[in-house]
Amino acid sequence: MGRLVDQYGAQQAVRVIRARALPPEFTAREAEQERPPDLAARLNTWYARLAASNPAADVEAGKRSAARLIIPGDSEWPTQLDQLGAGRPLALWAHGTADLRFSCLKSVAVVGARAATSYGSHVAAEFGVGLSESGWTVVSGGAFGVDGAAHKGALAAGAPTVVVLACGVDICYPSSHEALFAAVGQQGVLISECPPGVHPTRARFLIRNRLIAALSRGTVVVEAALRSGALNTASHALTLTRHLGAVPGPITSSMSAGCHRLLRERKAVCVTSPEDMIELVGVLGDDLTPQVRAPAVPRDRLNESTKRVLDAVPTRGGAGPASIAVAAGVGLDTALSALGGLAAAGYVERSTKGWRLRKQQTAYRKALDSATLEPPLAPEPDPAEVPPFPEDFL
Amino acid sequence: MGRLVDQYGAQQAVRVIRARALPPEFTAREAEQERPPDLAARLNTWYARLAASNPAADVEAGKRSAARLIIPGDSEWPTQLDQLGAGRPLALWAHGTADLRFSCLKSVAVVGARAATSYGSHVAAEFGVGLSESGWTVVSGGAFGVDGAAHKGALAAGAPTVVVLACGVDICYPSSHEALFAAVGQQGVLISECPPGVHPTRARFLIRNRLIAALSRGTVVVEAALRSGALNTASHALTLTRHLGAVPGPITSSMSAGCHRLLRERKAVCVTSPEDMIELVGVLGDDLTPQVRAPAVPRDRLNESTKRVLDAVPTRGGAGPASIAVAAGVGLDTALSALGGLAAAGYVERSTKGWRLRKQQTAYRKALDSATLEPPLAPEPDPAEVPPFPEDFL
Repeated sequence: MGRLVDQYGAQQAVRVIRARALPPEFTAREAEQERPPDLAARLNTWYARLAASNPAADVEAGKRSAARLIIPGDSEWPTQLDQLGAGRPLALWAHGTADLRFSCLKSVAVVGARAATSYGSHVAAEFGVGLSESGWTVVSGGAFGVDGAAHKGALAAGAPTVVVLACGVDICYPSSHEALFAAVGQQGVLISECPPGVHPTRARFLIRNRLIAALSRGTVVVEAALRSGALNTASHALTLTRHLGAVPGPITSSMSAGCHRLLRERKAVCVTSPEDMIELVGVLGDDLTPQVRAPAVPRDRLNESTKRVLDAVPTRGGAGPASIAVAAGVGLDTALSALGGLAAAGYVERSTKGWRLRKQQTAYRKALDSATLEPPLAPEPDPAEVPPFPEDFL
Repeated sequence: MGRLVDQYGAQQAVRVIRARALPPEFTAREAEQERPPDLAARLNTWYARLAASNPAADVEAGKRSAARLIIPGDSEWPTQLDQLGAGRPLALWAHGTADLRFSCLKSVAVVGARAATSYGSHVAAEFGVGLSESGWTVVSGGAFGVDGAAHKGALAAGAPTVVVLACGVDICYPSSHEALFAAVGQQGVLISECPPGVHPTRARFLIRNRLIAALSRGTVVVEAALRSGALNTASHALTLTRHLGAVPGPITSSMSAGCHRLLRERKAVCVTSPEDMIELVGVLGDDLTPQVRAPAVPRDRLNESTKRVLDAVPTRGGAGPASIAVAAGVGLDTALSALGGLAAAGYVERSTKGWRLRKQQTAYRKALDSATLEPPLAPEPDPAEVPPFPEDFL
């Protein structure tokens, strides 16, 4: 059907279906397809569907529900849908204040399980807020769970959001999302391929998913069981060579198993924050996420040999500079100079038994290594007074 | 030091250090290194360390603590350590009943945070059990948290496990792991580069990590903060071109942030089960993990057009075959034949208003789509009695 409309235009396509006679050159070209369709059967199906349709009533119903019809070439048409080729929708019904094309210029699809866990809903809402606050529009399917949470996050951030429905834009499915869809109508836009009044079917959900993927620069799967519609959207994103991210979760949660499979098969990039996703879909260099760094601790500011000397200083008792030098694997001069610096900086102190860590430094070392470290060497030898080597050793 | 021993043997290396005179040709070759070491300073350090050492006392202490010394060439020497090149340990002290080389032939390093969450400890123990039950030895560092849980899992599965210590094998660090280390001594083996009596230092932990990575065919990081010793082990595994896996966790947990960074940078493979890890390190084709599949539901056994017909059958009321055919996008013949088969299989039934889903099938469809689906089309047209097309439409 997509190819028929592409080649002959929508009006001529309706005429040939009504006449039950496809152009012979179209039939010839279709026979050359890799998997040629059964055109006679298709034509019968199209004929029956056309017979069952009532375009005038659709237009009337659209007017009643404040829905506008957008077709390719309109200024609101999102041209990225052209990448769907023959699978490009013939038209879209839209309801809401936001401009569809403009909203989707910088957009990310946030998708996932209907039966999301509280973790999944939390993450989806955080992504909804975070993406919106950075100027990225959230596109999703308006379903329970991840979809709904992502839309709500976007609305909370005061941004438009795009709901792609598998039913008419005047149908509220799921019905408990009535308030959500009303808010989207005020602040964003609800769109659908289906005319007003059409109810969702399983097939319509699957067909709808390609639009979610095609409208967005990338798709992030927040939670998905191994058998999830979100994985269908993910696969559309890959087919369209859009970016695909997956949010990891506990391996004990079946609701993250689909995400983990995408990661394991290296189909998706691991995404742990809205910034990660923006880096993925953003313009190179323009939208780089700041590299996540571990918190800096004072020890980081020490040079390598001073660090080794610090690590060789015992917690309790004390050690002489020579034994500290040996334990640290540095020369005595280096050890002496490092100990002086460390003492001045408050890391170490001199006791009657030699050098030891100062109390607060002990606590700090404990925090990093989860336990105190014992003095590495005792008693202390001095290189100047090296004892004779045991002659039987060699 | 590694290159000195490699080229001249351990005994000659001791002699030249004691004489404080390196062979001139060695000095010349070292000067050609990319980053030539300060050999004079090194020699002084080695001299001081040699002076502070007491090999005879070490051997005696080893005997007292039932530790054996293993050197390259011994039958128990794990030859995979040769890949460390000049960083290969000069010798290993071992305590325990298990043969080190044999235990490590098929081994996996399970590493992670000391401050593991209960999730991390649970996963580590599961991996310890699962890997052991499949004949893979668990190698780890004997630390609090992930390491300890992995060792305990292996012991619970009745398998040997290898603890690589950063202190002498007679030192119990952390001290609360006394019972664990005693059990490993009975069933596995504790090893260390350090002679008996040596206490751990930060540097020794870092140096120890290369042994954990080098002994194993692969390393899996269970939990790791952004600043974690486990990431050091992971980087050794990559340097040695061993396999690296990372277990995902909630993005809200800082203890999984290190794992997620490894995944995001595609340094590690996403690992969600011991089987995943075995597939990674195992022999191609021999150790493949069974593909994780979603549970099969009866619908999967239907062919494509029958599925579409089933999805087009309404939940309530009823619909005639023609409207079902239109909604499903199939021909009337196909719909009629599919409806017959679906009725025989108990999926659909005929009511006074036409075909509808049987009650239990409704429940099943609800479970998958989280909501009931409305009848897709009503009223029902018949292709045989097509109404005239609205002429103003074209």
